[in-house]
Amino acid sequence: MSGWIDEHHRGVRYGLIGEVLVEETSPFQRITVIRSERYGRGLLLDGCWMTAERQERHYHESLVHPALCGAASVARVLVIGGGDGGTARECLRHQGVEHLDLVEIDGRVVELSREYLPGIGGSAWTDPRLRLTVGDGIAWAAAAADNSYDVVLVDGSDPAGPAEGLFNRTFFEHCRRILRPGGIFATQSESPEAFQEVHVAMVKLLKDVFDHADPLYGWVPMYPSGWWSWTFAAMGQPRYRQPNTNRATAIADGCRIWSPRWQRGAFEAIPAFIARELS
Amino acid sequence: MSGWIDEHHRGVRYGLIGEVLVEETSPFQRITVIRSERYGRGLLLDGCWMTAERQERHYHESLVHPALCGAASVARVLVIGGGDGGTARECLRHQGVEHLDLVEIDGRVVELSREYLPGIGGSAWTDPRLRLTVGDGIAWAAAAADNSYDVVLVDGSDPAGPAEGLFNRTFFEHCRRILRPGGIFATQSESPEAFQEVHVAMVKLLKDVFDHADPLYGWVPMYPSGWWSWTFAAMGQPRYRQPNTNRATAIADGCRIWSPRWQRGAFEAIPAFIARELS
Repeated sequence: MSGWIDEHHRGVRYGLIGEVLVEETSPFQRITVIRSERYGRGLLLDGCWMTAERQERHYHESLVHPALCGAASVARVLVIGGGDGGTARECLRHQGVEHLDLVEIDGRVVELSREYLPGIGGSAWTDPRLRLTVGDGIAWAAAAADNSYDVVLVDGSDPAGPAEGLFNRTFFEHCRRILRPGGIFATQSESPEAFQEVHVAMVKLLKDVFDHADPLYGWVPMYPSGWWSWTFAAMGQPRYRQPNTNRATAIADGCRIWSPRWQRGAFEAIPAFIARELS
Repeated sequence: MSGWIDEHHRGVRYGLIGEVLVEETSPFQRITVIRSERYGRGLLLDGCWMTAERQERHYHESLVHPALCGAASVARVLVIGGGDGGTARECLRHQGVEHLDLVEIDGRVVELSREYLPGIGGSAWTDPRLRLTVGDGIAWAAAAADNSYDVVLVDGSDPAGPAEGLFNRTFFEHCRRILRPGGIFATQSESPEAFQEVHVAMVKLLKDVFDHADPLYGWVPMYPSGWWSWTFAAMGQPRYRQPNTNRATAIADGCRIWSPRWQRGAFEAIPAFIARELS
């Protein structure tokens, strides 16, 4: 029973030919697992594309490596959201990571991802450094001790439903508080085209909460407009801009999108209309 | 009669809600003009999105300004394709342009663009510096005198149908021959994601024909994957990489995407999988 599976956004649709394997409603959202011809198996939450087997690296490499190559240490990492496991997998490629807390609010996303999209989490699910907690990442950040993480990554969905609290000042201030000196915060920050207002507001807020915050622009073809951003923030120095050479060398060969050169370009490739709004 | 108007590409579709205003078959292709809720009026050729009123600047600014800000002179410009007028419009914003030959194979594309998408060509259509020729751009380049243009821009569709001859060595060699010293050649060079093989082949061929050739990566949300490229080439020095300050200053305020910073980033943001194929 093959057909089109689409996400609709403001008069635009992006669809893949495929079939629905699972559709269920968790306490948090509608979860859909599909199999597509073009990108393999994929996941939608509340009808929005989240990830797919052969398109997930655009998102996960962009979020993870500028942070994990830049932080003073990567010993302790917190990932909020990211229930498909892809962000954790990319983090754990860095040998310096000793402990990774993955805090995902919806346990069914984890269960279905492990069952149907096992390649996305990959070896992360059995890595002894990973501690999975099914729970509220916002409460987790609020309860965490000062200076307790080297890197905090937010891998959440759009600011509606369970992810709404990931887009506000109180949450960002807790993320700043729980970072160690030399630490880096990073979050997906929506599309500058399809979610222009949210994107600009997030970057401005992060610039206000942290000493430094900079958006990085890349591509996730299945997301609205295909043009996506991640924003990196830090106190003291913008360490996310300068990859540690040893860490970069250790992971570069295994990357599909990320490289030190790509990262340098992606931080510079801010479109004129966004630069004007931020200035 | 509103509905979805989609482009299909390898098991993916990108659609806009809107209505078809015109659909006809010229001697070269099927031409469709639509009105969409999200991006205003738009144009498809053979069912592929070409442009739309509120999304066209991503493409036209990316193709034009790295070339016209970098060339030693911009007095004489040749545009092959580009029947919607957007490329000519952006070129003619540069006051140094004295003469622009626009050679479009399909006169109906020009006529329908002027009638239904007048904002895309804008003042270009009445600019005395523009000379429109309805004819074969490949033959035009073959017949042009040596050293007769400062900039040659190719604004064509995918390598099937009338645009097929825009993707081969003989054509590129004529473009090189007709450029003056310090001149720049630029062409759209497809998506590194949706047309990976064609993209890589074009960049390699241009690197072979010219002393320098470099792809630049940007976004056209309505094209397959949203991730698009343009490749710039030159003899002697890669002048396209360094915008002339006066020319850049004169146009920057009127740009939505392009800026010297954006351009610098867009040349660097080559994804790792393409960099490996080109090395």
